[in-house]
Amino acid sequence: MRLPFETLRDEFKRVLRSLNFTDEKAGLCATIFAESSRDGVYSHGLNRFPVFVDFVKEGLVKPDAEPTKQNGFGALERWDGNLGPGMLNAGFCMGRAIELAAKHGIGCVALKNTNHWMRAGTYGWQAAEAGMIGICFTNTIANLPPWGGAEPRLGNNPLVIAVPRNEGHIVLDMAISQYSVGKLNQYKNNNEQLPVAGGYDSSGALSTDPAEILESKRLLPVGFWKGSGLSMMLDLLATVLSEGNSTARITKSGKETSNCQVFICIRPELNTAAQQAIEEVIEYTKTSQPADGGFVAYPGENTLRTREKSLKEGVWVDERIWEIVKAL
Amino acid sequence: MRLPFETLRDEFKRVLRSLNFTDEKAGLCATIFAESSRDGVYSHGLNRFPVFVDFVKEGLVKPDAEPTKQNGFGALERWDGNLGPGMLNAGFCMGRAIELAAKHGIGCVALKNTNHWMRAGTYGWQAAEAGMIGICFTNTIANLPPWGGAEPRLGNNPLVIAVPRNEGHIVLDMAISQYSVGKLNQYKNNNEQLPVAGGYDSSGALSTDPAEILESKRLLPVGFWKGSGLSMMLDLLATVLSEGNSTARITKSGKETSNCQVFICIRPELNTAAQQAIEEVIEYTKTSQPADGGFVAYPGENTLRTREKSLKEGVWVDERIWEIVKAL
Repeated sequence: MRLPFETLRDEFKRVLRSLNFTDEKAGLCATIFAESSRDGVYSHGLNRFPVFVDFVKEGLVKPDAEPTKQNGFGALERWDGNLGPGMLNAGFCMGRAIELAAKHGIGCVALKNTNHWMRAGTYGWQAAEAGMIGICFTNTIANLPPWGGAEPRLGNNPLVIAVPRNEGHIVLDMAISQYSVGKLNQYKNNNEQLPVAGGYDSSGALSTDPAEILESKRLLPVGFWKGSGLSMMLDLLATVLSEGNSTARITKSGKETSNCQVFICIRPELNTAAQQAIEEVIEYTKTSQPADGGFVAYPGENTLRTREKSLKEGVWVDERIWEIVKAL
Repeated sequence: MRLPFETLRDEFKRVLRSLNFTDEKAGLCATIFAESSRDGVYSHGLNRFPVFVDFVKEGLVKPDAEPTKQNGFGALERWDGNLGPGMLNAGFCMGRAIELAAKHGIGCVALKNTNHWMRAGTYGWQAAEAGMIGICFTNTIANLPPWGGAEPRLGNNPLVIAVPRNEGHIVLDMAISQYSVGKLNQYKNNNEQLPVAGGYDSSGALSTDPAEILESKRLLPVGFWKGSGLSMMLDLLATVLSEGNSTARITKSGKETSNCQVFICIRPELNTAAQQAIEEVIEYTKTSQPADGGFVAYPGENTLRTREKSLKEGVWVDERIWEIVKAL
């Protein structure tokens, strides 16, 4: 089923208002949820909304909390999210990184005691909209085994890199596992095999069977040992810079809350030469002869296509989850 | 064959002195080559040295060139490498990023018109030695097909992230292809199959056969579409920030020279709590039950083990290449 963007946003806002979110905060959060579904990231849009509501009801996400500054040194600042809504804390901190980059050329904000920021790419798009190069990442609860190990000890710590561009920003939004748990469930529910191996089966063999992988809990990091190392580095950076909780501590607490994030902005000189260089990179990459009926896209290109379709034909919603949200 | 570290370094220095490197520059470059072999990165140590000498002889690497500042804005600076030796330019720029981070909390130096920096990790270790978090990356000539395409259009653009630690720095040095061309050749020469798929054979199927992959030139990026996107982003960042040549332009020029790089340093507060948090991340990750006789290591851990062995028993050298270098 497809619904107008505004219908989703207004419904989310109605629910959040009933949970003691101020009008402004409810509007901001509702917009981010609706935008994620609009852009095709259903797992962090409509489909995640009931989980977010549960976290608010459990008191893990505090609607009235505001981020407070811990300390700052030049272009580097540390903020405490005070367990407020993750999207608001993250949006605030990326906004602060944008201000620091405008002043110093580059800026970095580390955030502790926050909550799930939902779609990671949101804050990359935010930086790019402000004309900034944006880099951000978060840690998470452990859901990925390290290379060489069988039990989850690493987070799926997504990494976002965004470059502003007049014809459509270039935004990489990359989690560390080859497939998210949400994607694995989607394939499983459709009775489909994965296009490439996404983890291990119970015998320890690489598998394209989503049910087997969900059962073994041995999801594959991108590039095996490489993604495993990258996940650990992002957790270390977030933990050390924010002085917050590592994946280890979040996991020991039992709930994915009080995690930490890093937001870096760099001020590019987007003169004509730089803009031409960006187009040249995209055009050159696209001259690669398509393989196996494939299509060479730049990061964010498919997002823009989905966005356009959603705004024209309505945002796709899972009717079952939509009914749940309407009843909240 | 194993040789003392000093023997390698002195031999490299002798050759470089004969190519009109000053005593200081010859010493610095020779040390970096010897350190790469010492740390087990033979492909960018001894094995690469003859190629470097060829580039100097062809005039592509200019021994007497010094980096010059293009412009700066607060904690962000742009430098021109003037086609000097890549290791010296990179070492200088990471040094400058360290200074900027000491002053502003975070610093970024973008470098254009430089040359291959050899082992990427070198500059991560440099930052960590200075007590800084270091992030750096470079673009390269196209040697990797983008996801969806069959012909190389992306660079193998390595990404380095380093976190300082008293008991041994944590340094991720990650190229974007699952296996480098050097590694593929190594497996091929040993008549071995790859442990995991490293690219495609000529029929377009995923393959663990190094010879088939070298033939098709379809190396696999880490995480398929994810590494493909990451490579493009690193190229865009390096190109836009330095105002230098993209992978597209480097490739069109036909030779891997005049590429660009980015060096970011962040000043961490390495107080007792932060140091404990780092140890906790490492310890927790290592509690994952070993899989398939595997071993959970943090990035850089194996490097330190190889380094120790090299310093004790001598640095491993390929005798055939050692003879070539001695005859230079």
